[in-house]
Amino acid sequence: MASPGLPPYFSLGVCYYPEHWPSERWPIYARQMREIGLSYARLAEFAWSRIEPTEGNFEWEWLDHAIETLAAEDLGVILGTPTGSPPPWLLTKYPEILPVDKDGRTRTHGSRKHYDHASPIYRRYCQEIVAAMAQRYGDHPAVIGWQIDNEWGESDSTASYGPVAQDAFQDWLRHRYRTLPALNEAWGGVFWSQEYTAWDQTPLPNLTMNDPNPSHVLDFQRFATACITEFQNLQVDIIRAASPGRFITHNGMGNFEEVDYYQCVESLDFMAWDSYPLGQIDKGLLQGLDPTDWIGAGHPDLISINHDLMRGLKPGASTMVMEQQAGQVNWAQANPLPAANAVALWTMQAWAHGCDSVCYFRWRAATAAQELMHSGLLRHDESLDRGGQEIANLELPIGPLQAVTAKVVLLHDYESGWVANEQRHTQAWSYWKQMMLFYSTLRRLGVDVDIRHPDADLSAYAVIVAPCLHIVTPERAEHLREAAQNSHLVVGPRTGFRTESGRVPEDGQPGLLRDLLGCTLLNFDGMWPGTTIEAGGEEVTIWAEAYQPTTAQVLHTYDSGPLQGEAAVVRNGKVTTIGAFSSLLIARVLAQVLAQAGIAVVPLDEGLRRSSRGGRTLWMNFNDNERRLPDGRHIPAHDYILD
Amino acid sequence: MASPGLPPYFSLGVCYYPEHWPSERWPIYARQMREIGLSYARLAEFAWSRIEPTEGNFEWEWLDHAIETLAAEDLGVILGTPTGSPPPWLLTKYPEILPVDKDGRTRTHGSRKHYDHASPIYRRYCQEIVAAMAQRYGDHPAVIGWQIDNEWGESDSTASYGPVAQDAFQDWLRHRYRTLPALNEAWGGVFWSQEYTAWDQTPLPNLTMNDPNPSHVLDFQRFATACITEFQNLQVDIIRAASPGRFITHNGMGNFEEVDYYQCVESLDFMAWDSYPLGQIDKGLLQGLDPTDWIGAGHPDLISINHDLMRGLKPGASTMVMEQQAGQVNWAQANPLPAANAVALWTMQAWAHGCDSVCYFRWRAATAAQELMHSGLLRHDESLDRGGQEIANLELPIGPLQAVTAKVVLLHDYESGWVANEQRHTQAWSYWKQMMLFYSTLRRLGVDVDIRHPDADLSAYAVIVAPCLHIVTPERAEHLREAAQNSHLVVGPRTGFRTESGRVPEDGQPGLLRDLLGCTLLNFDGMWPGTTIEAGGEEVTIWAEAYQPTTAQVLHTYDSGPLQGEAAVVRNGKVTTIGAFSSLLIARVLAQVLAQAGIAVVPLDEGLRRSSRGGRTLWMNFNDNERRLPDGRHIPAHDYILD
Amino acid sequence: MASPGLPPYFSLGVCYYPEHWPSERWPIYARQMREIGLSYARLAEFAWSRIEPTEGNFEWEWLDHAIETLAAEDLGVILGTPTGSPPPWLLTKYPEILPVDKDGRTRTHGSRKHYDHASPIYRRYCQEIVAAMAQRYGDHPAVIGWQIDNEWGESDSTASYGPVAQDAFQDWLRHRYRTLPALNEAWGGVFWSQEYTAWDQTPLPNLTMNDPNPSHVLDFQRFATACITEFQNLQVDIIRAASPGRFITHNGMGNFEEVDYYQCVESLDFMAWDSYPLGQIDKGLLQGLDPTDWIGAGHPDLISINHDLMRGLKPGASTMVMEQQAGQVNWAQANPLPAANAVALWTMQAWAHGCDSVCYFRWRAATAAQELMHSGLLRHDESLDRGGQEIANLELPIGPLQAVTAKVVLLHDYESGWVANEQRHTQAWSYWKQMMLFYSTLRRLGVDVDIRHPDADLSAYAVIVAPCLHIVTPERAEHLREAAQNSHLVVGPRTGFRTESGRVPEDGQPGLLRDLLGCTLLNFDGMWPGTTIEAGGEEVTIWAEAYQPTTAQVLHTYDSGPLQGEAAVVRNGKVTTIGAFSSLLIARVLAQVLAQAGIAVVPLDEGLRRSSRGGRTLWMNFNDNERRLPDGRHIPAHDYILD
Repeated sequence: MASPGLPPYFSLGVCYYPEHWPSERWPIYARQMREIGLSYARLAEFAWSRIEPTEGNFEWEWLDHAIETLAAEDLGVILGTPTGSPPPWLLTKYPEILPVDKDGRTRTHGSRKHYDHASPIYRRYCQEIVAAMAQRYGDHPAVIGWQIDNEWGESDSTASYGPVAQDAFQDWLRHRYRTLPALNEAWGGVFWSQEYTAWDQTPLPNLTMNDPNPSHVLDFQRFATACITEFQNLQVDIIRAASPGRFITHNGMGNFEEVDYYQCVESLDFMAWDSYPLGQIDKGLLQGLDPTDWIGAGHPDLISINHDLMRGLKPGASTMVMEQQAGQVNWAQANPLPAANAVALWTMQAWAHGCDSVCYFRWRAATAAQELMHSGLLRHDESLDRGGQEIANLELPIGPLQAVTAKVVLLHDYESGWVANEQRHTQAWSYWKQMMLFYSTLRRLGVDVDIRHPDADLSAYAVIVAPCLHIVTPERAEHLREAAQNSHLVVGPRTGFRTESGRVPEDGQPGLLRDLLGCTLLNFDGMWPGTTIEAGGEEVTIWAEAYQPTTAQVLHTYDSGPLQGEAAVVRNGKVTTIGAFSSLLIARVLAQVLAQAGIAVVPLDEGLRRSSRGGRTLWMNFNDNERRLPDGRHIPAHDYILD
Repeated sequence: MASPGLPPYFSLGVCYYPEHWPSERWPIYARQMREIGLSYARLAEFAWSRIEPTEGNFEWEWLDHAIETLAAEDLGVILGTPTGSPPPWLLTKYPEILPVDKDGRTRTHGSRKHYDHASPIYRRYCQEIVAAMAQRYGDHPAVIGWQIDNEWGESDSTASYGPVAQDAFQDWLRHRYRTLPALNEAWGGVFWSQEYTAWDQTPLPNLTMNDPNPSHVLDFQRFATACITEFQNLQVDIIRAASPGRFITHNGMGNFEEVDYYQCVESLDFMAWDSYPLGQIDKGLLQGLDPTDWIGAGHPDLISINHDLMRGLKPGASTMVMEQQAGQVNWAQANPLPAANAVALWTMQAWAHGCDSVCYFRWRAATAAQELMHSGLLRHDESLDRGGQEIANLELPIGPLQAVTAKVVLLHDYESGWVANEQRHTQAWSYWKQMMLFYSTLRRLGVDVDIRHPDADLSAYAVIVAPCLHIVTPERAEHLREAAQNSHLVVGPRTGFRTESGRVPEDGQPGLLRDLLGCTLLNFDGMWPGTTIEAGGEEVTIWAEAYQPTTAQVLHTYDSGPLQGEAAVVRNGKVTTIGAFSSLLIARVLAQVLAQAGIAVVPLDEGLRRSSRGGRTLWMNFNDNERRLPDGRHIPAHDYILD
Repeated sequence: MASPGLPPYFSLGVCYYPEHWPSERWPIYARQMREIGLSYARLAEFAWSRIEPTEGNFEWEWLDHAIETLAAEDLGVILGTPTGSPPPWLLTKYPEILPVDKDGRTRTHGSRKHYDHASPIYRRYCQEIVAAMAQRYGDHPAVIGWQIDNEWGESDSTASYGPVAQDAFQDWLRHRYRTLPALNEAWGGVFWSQEYTAWDQTPLPNLTMNDPNPSHVLDFQRFATACITEFQNLQVDIIRAASPGRFITHNGMGNFEEVDYYQCVESLDFMAWDSYPLGQIDKGLLQGLDPTDWIGAGHPDLISINHDLMRGLKPGASTMVMEQQAGQVNWAQANPLPAANAVALWTMQAWAHGCDSVCYFRWRAATAAQELMHSGLLRHDESLDRGGQEIANLELPIGPLQAVTAKVVLLHDYESGWVANEQRHTQAWSYWKQMMLFYSTLRRLGVDVDIRHPDADLSAYAVIVAPCLHIVTPERAEHLREAAQNSHLVVGPRTGFRTESGRVPEDGQPGLLRDLLGCTLLNFDGMWPGTTIEAGGEEVTIWAEAYQPTTAQVLHTYDSGPLQGEAAVVRNGKVTTIGAFSSLLIARVLAQVLAQAGIAVVPLDEGLRRSSRGGRTLWMNFNDNERRLPDGRHIPAHDYILD
C-alpha cells in the first residue's frame, strides 16, 4: 500500500541538516542513523542560501556529498524544495515579494515564510531552483521522494494582504463569478451597500471598520488555498517530469485549519504531517480537560484526530509523519520535556492510525539560530538524547503495511469550519472543538474512526457522523441522502446553516436537509462561558439549538434554559440530529446508534485508547500513572500493549 | 407630548430592509406588521447602493414601491439617511474619505462607517443624496420622521487620525484658542516642552511615545463631537427645509460615552437610542455582580440608565428606542437567546422610563452578510420568532403619553467622563462605573431618577446627586451653588478635580466648590483590584479620598488603609460629599438624605425594580426566578406587573 | 566616598520644575525646601521649550533667576539636559528625527522621548543646547552636578526601527564583524537560509514572519545600548570640559533590563536611579507572593535589588536615587497611596544599601498635563503632603558616608538576560525572575549582597552566586575559574548555555565551564505554569535541568517528573550547580555554602529585612502589621530600627 519511494514496511527516518555541521561529521552521523534503525533522511528544505548563494550561481558539491554519505549507509533521501525560506539577496532585490499582514504591515526577511504566494516574480525564482534540483537529483537512486516547500500557512503566512494579493484575488473572483451581479448576490452585498460596480472595487477583507462580509472572507480563504495550491503545483509539475517513481508530498500541520488540504493533496501522492503533541496540548482540548494533565505525552485524541484526518485526505494512499517530536520543542508557551517512553508511544500510535513511516525532527540539536532550544535525536554535545534512545530500542510492527479499516466515519471540511468560525456566536465555540467533541466521544467508546470529506465515497461505513456540516450544497444534500439510505447518520449542531457562498438558505436551516433530518431549526443559543443548561438530564455548555420536528420524533428535550421543553435531539428513521453541545448526551446517543449498527463499543477511561490496524490492536495509556485495560491487564504510564 | 410625526400613544415599529427581499413578499410583510400591532417601519438607512447605484444615477422606484406597500397597510415610515455606509464606487474614486485609525492604519470599505466625518468630499456627497431623498419623500404622507446616519461612533468611528482630521482639528483649535499662548496655557504645554509655536505643529493625540497630554485628548474628543455634529447638521438643515412636520432624530447607542449627545441633540427633535440588553451585560455592571446571572433579560439598571439619560438630553422632548433587541444579537462575545418574556419586559420598561415608541430590530433575520446570525421578528424561514410572538401578545399601556416625573436628579456630562477616564488612576475605575454606583443605589431604593447635564435647570428636584462632577467651571460652580439653596446636594468622589481645559485648579481640589462643600481634598487612593478597606463600617473598593473639613462636619471616617482616621463623608448644611467608592455606605447616606427631603424609599432586591410614569407604577423582575414584591405579591421570572 | 559635587554626608533633594509655577512662588518654595531639610534641587531636564523657545533663540533669564533663588537658600542645583523631550518646532522641521516602533509605525511628538538616538540631526541639536547650558552654568557655584537626558529606554524608546536606525545598525555590524562570513557564522545564518551577501541586506529584527534570529536580536540590543551610550557621551564630553568638579550622572530605571547600564556608566561618575516601589509591585515579584500584600510600602527585595545593582555598576563610586517616590504615582495599573511611614522607610533603606543621597520626585504636584495625578511633596494646594511631612520629621544617619561591605556577590549581566529572555522556553521564566529567586533567598537569610558584572574583580567575596550566567566567553570562563579558587561558587540553571554571539557551545552546555562545574547538561524542562515536580524533597516550578556528573558529586536528585532520578544539584569541590528553580532547595544549598564560608545567616520572615552599612544595621518591616525581630524586639508595620 505504501507509495512509490517509501519502504514497503513501517519505517523510520529523520530530518537532517548537513549544511549545519562540518562535513567530517557526516559519515559518523550516517552510520549512527543506520545503527538506531533509520531508513532515510529528509534534507535541503531550508538550504537555498547554500544551493544558490548568489543569484544564478548554484553550488551542488556539498549536497552531492551529503547525499552520497547517506547513500553509503543505505539510507534513502527525501529532498525538500527550499522555497520556504528565500535568501536575503532575493528579497533585497525584489521587496515586492514580501507579504503584507492583516494589519497592513509589510513583513521582512530574517526568519522564514516571507513571501506572497501570488508573487509572479517569486514563483519564477522558485521554478528555477526547483528545476535545477530536480534535474540534478531527480533520478538519483538514493532519492526516494520530495517534499514541496514547508508547512503551508506556518508563521501566519496563509494569506498576504498587499497589492499583489489584491490583484490575484480580484482575478480569482472574476473567474469564479463572471459577473458582478453574481458576486453581489453571492455575498449579499446589498447589506450595508457594499455592492460592487467594478472588479477593482473589491477589497481584501482586512482593515474594515466593522466585521467584513463573511462570504467575502470565505471566498478570500478559498482564494488563499487556491493560490497556495497553484504555487505548489508549479513545483510538482517540474518534479513529476524529472523524478519518476518518487513520491511527492507536503508536510501539513496538526490542528491547523487555514489551508484546505483536500485541495493541496490532489496533485500530491499523499499528505504528510508534522506531529508535535506537547506543542499543542492547549489547542482544542475537550471542554473540561486540563492541558497540564497531559504534559507527559499529550492527549491521545488531539494527536490521532490529525492522523485520521491526513489519512482520509486521499483515501487509499499512504500517509506519514514528516516531522515527529522526539524531545522538547521550543516554540510553545511552555516546552516541557516529554515523559519517558512518550516518543515510542507516539511512534506506535502513528502506525496504528495508518502511518507508513515516521520521520523524527531533527537529527542533532541546532547550536545556532531560532531553534537552538529544540531537541534532536542527538544532543548539542552529540550524545544520543532520550528520544533517540527510545527509537533505538523500539520494536516496530513488522510485515507488509495494511490499511486501517473503520466502520464509522466522521465528516469534515475546511470550508464549513472557515465560515462557521467567522461567526462563532459565542467565543467559546469553534468548528474544531465541535469536531473534537464527537471524535473524542467515539474514541472513548473504543471505536476506530475514519475522517472523510462530506463529498467522499461513504458507502463503506455503517455509521456516518457529521459533527458540523455547516455548508450544504444541493449536490452534497443529495449525496448525503443517498449515503443515509444504507447507513446510520448522526448530525450535530449548526448543520445545514449555510449555502455554498456562505448565505443562509432562504427557507431557513437546515435548508436542503430538512426532509432528511425531518425537522426545522427553531432557535439557537450561543452560551456564555461558565453557564450551563441541561438536556436529557445531561449538562450542556457553549451551544444549544432546538428543532421543530416535521417527520422526526423527539428523543430528548431541554430541561432548562430559554429552550426549556423544546427538542434537543430528534430522530428521523436512521438519521439523528443532536443540537446540544453535551459530551455525555452525545455519548448516549452515539452508543445507541452504534449498537443498532452492530458496532461493539468498549468504554475507556480518559487517556486510555485502543486503535486497530491490519488485525492487530494497540492499547495505549497516555495518563501519567498506571491503568487497567478493560480485560484487567495493567498498562504502565505512557506505555502501550500491541495485541 | 410626543414629537410631530410620532403617534400620540405608546407605539411600536420595526426596522425593515425591503431591499433584502423579493418585492413579492412586501405586501405580505406589511400585512403581518399591522397584524402584530406595529405602527411604522424604519427603512433605507443602509440603502445607498440601491438609491444611487452609480454616481449621480438615482433609482427611486423600488423605494417608492416599498413605502407605498407599507402605506397601504396604514403603516408610517421613518427614513434613515444612508450615509452610514457609502458604496464602494465612492471610496474607490476618493480614497481620501477613508478614516485612519489610532494606529495610523487607513481602514477600508467592505463593512460600514468607513469615512472621516471631516472629509469635505464626503460631506458634499452626503448632502447630495440627502437632498435628493428629502426632495422626493419630504412631504410624503406616510413619512413620519427621519433618522440621520446610524449610531455615531459605531465601529470605533468617532475619530479619524489622518491628515483630513488633523487639518480640521488644527482649525478647530485656532478657532477655540485664538492664540498659541492661550493653547499652551490651557494644556500646560510647558510640561515636557510641548509648547507650540505654530498651529500646524499641533499633532493628533495618537502615536505619542508616552501618554498624550490629557488636555490635548480632551480637546480632541470635543473636536470629534463637534465634527460629527457639524456633519449631522448639514443633513438636518436640508431635511428641516424639505420635510416639515416630521421629526428628525439620531439613534445613539447605550453605554456609549465617546460622543457628547448633548451637542448632537440640539438640532434634533430628540435623541433615540438602540437598546441591546444582552449584548451589553458585560459592560459596566456594578462591582460584585456577575454578568452570567443576567443572561436571561439583562440587568435592569444597565438598561434603564440609558433610557433616563436619553430622556434627559432634551428635557420635555420625546424619546424612543430606535432599535430594540427582540431575540439573540450576533455581535457580543457570547450571544444567548433571551429568556421567554424578555422582549415584553424590555418594551414595558421602555415605556415606564419615558419612551414614546419602541422600534424592534429587525423584521426578518438576514439571510446574508454580517448579521445573518442576528434574530428578527421573523425567522429566516419567515415563521414568527419568539420575540415577534411576545410583541403580538403584548398589552400596551393605553391613553395619551405622559411625562416621567422624578424628584431626584443625577448629574452627568460626557466631558467629565472623558477627562477622568483618560487618567483613571486605577484601571478598575471608570466614570460610567461611578455613575452606575450611584444610579443603582437609588434604583435599589425604589426611587425614580432623572439624569441631567449639570448646567441644566435643576429647580424641580428635591435631591441632586452628582456622582462625578469632575470638571467645574466658574459658571457651573455658581449654578450649583444656586441649585443647592433649595435642594439637597450629594457629590461623589473626584468632584471639582479639573478646570474646563482639564487642568487641576491652582488652589487644589475641589477648587471652586470649596465653600459649597465646606472641605478640601487631602489625598486620594486608586486601589488595586482585589483590595478593600473600610469606611463607616462598610467595604470600600477601587477609590477612596479623604477631606479636610473647613465648615463641614465629618459623618464617616476611614476605618483602615492609608487614610485611616481621615474623613470619608462630610456634610456642609444640605450638601454631602462622599469620597468612598462603597455601595453600602452610599446607600446609607442617600437613604438619610432622601428621608430628609421627604422622598419615600422602598428597598428592593437586586433585579427587582419599580418605575412610575403618569400615575402608574411598573414592577419588574429581571431575575430568573420568581420573587415577592414588597407588598407580598408574587412576580414571575422576567415578568412585570403594571399597577 | 561621595562624588565631587554631592554633599559628603547622607543628603536629600527634590526634583523641581520652577518653569511650571509663577516666579513669585520661587523664594517661598526654596525656603520651604531648606526648612524640611533638603540640600539641593534637580531642574531643567524637560525645559527645552523654555530655554530655546524657537530655533537658536536661547532664553536664560528665568533659569538664571530660578538657580539664584535656590542658591540664596544655600541649596545646590543638579541640572538635567533637556534632551529627553525635544520641542515641537524641532520635530516639525525634521520629522526624520521621530522614532519608528517595532510595528513599523512612526511615532509622534506630544509627550516625550520622541527621537531616534541615532539621528545625526537630533544629535547636532542636542550638542548645541547642551553646549549652551554648559557654557552658561558649568562653573556656577550652585551647580553640583549634571544629569544627562532622562531614563534611557523610557516609553519603549530603547530602539527605533526606521531607516535611520537601520543604517546605523548596519554600520555597527560592519564594524563589529568586518566580514559577512564572520557575521553569518556568528548568527548561524545558514539556518533558514538567512545568510547575507551584502551589508545592506541585514534587516532590523522586527516584522519577521517567524521569530527573528536570536543572535540577530542580541546584536541589535547591543547596538541599541551602544547607540544610546554614544548619544549620551556626546553630551558628557561637552559638560566634562565646561563644568569641572561636578558629577555627571544619568537616572536609570528600576527593574529595567533593556539598556546595558555597565556600558552607559563608563563615562559617568556614577549611575543614579529612579525608585518607585508602588509602581512596580507587579513586576518580577517572587513566585508565590501576591502583589496586593505589598501595596503599603512595596516589597523590600524588589527595591533593594536595584540599589545593590546600581551600586555595583561602578564599584567604589557613589550612587543615589534621583527620583524617589514620595506619595502616589500616576502611571501604574493601580496607584495606591503609600502607607504612613513608607517614604521614611524607603529613604532609610536607600541609605543602608549604599545610596549617598535621595532626591524626591517632585516638589509640588503638577496642575497640568500628563502627571497631574502624581503626588509631590506639596499638594496641588501647596500644603505639605504626607510624604513631605515624613521627610521633614526624618532623623537621618549622620557622619561621613561609608561603603557597604558584603561577603556575598551575585553576578549579573544584561546580555545574558537579553539572550535568555528571547528564548524563555516557558513564558513563566525570565532572567530577572531567576535573579530575584537567588537574591531574595539570600536576603531572607539576612545576608548582605553585592551585585557585580561577571567580569568584575571578585576577589573580595567569600561566596560568589551566579544565578544565570547564560553567556560564557573564554575570558569569562578563565576569570571564573580563578575566582573560584579562593571562593565558594554557586551557579544556577541555564549556566554556560551560550557563546558571545548567542550560539550554543559546539560541545554542548555548560561549554567552557564543564571542568569547573564537573558535569555536563543532560536535559532541561521548561515547565507549564501550574505544574510542579520535586527535587531533594522540595517543590520545583518553571524550570528543571539535570546533569551528568563528570567529576562532581550528586547532592540532590529529582523525585518526580520526566527527570526523576537524575541529578538536580551537584558539587565539584567548592563549586555547586543548582538546576532546579526551587526557592526552598536553593535556600538549603545556600545556607550550607554560607556556613562553610563562615558567613552567619539570620533567617527572616517574609517582608522583614536587615541591611548593614558602615557598622550600623538597619532592621526593616515592610509588612502591614507589627512583627518581631529575631532578637524579640517588636517592629511596627512599615517601620525600621537602626542599630
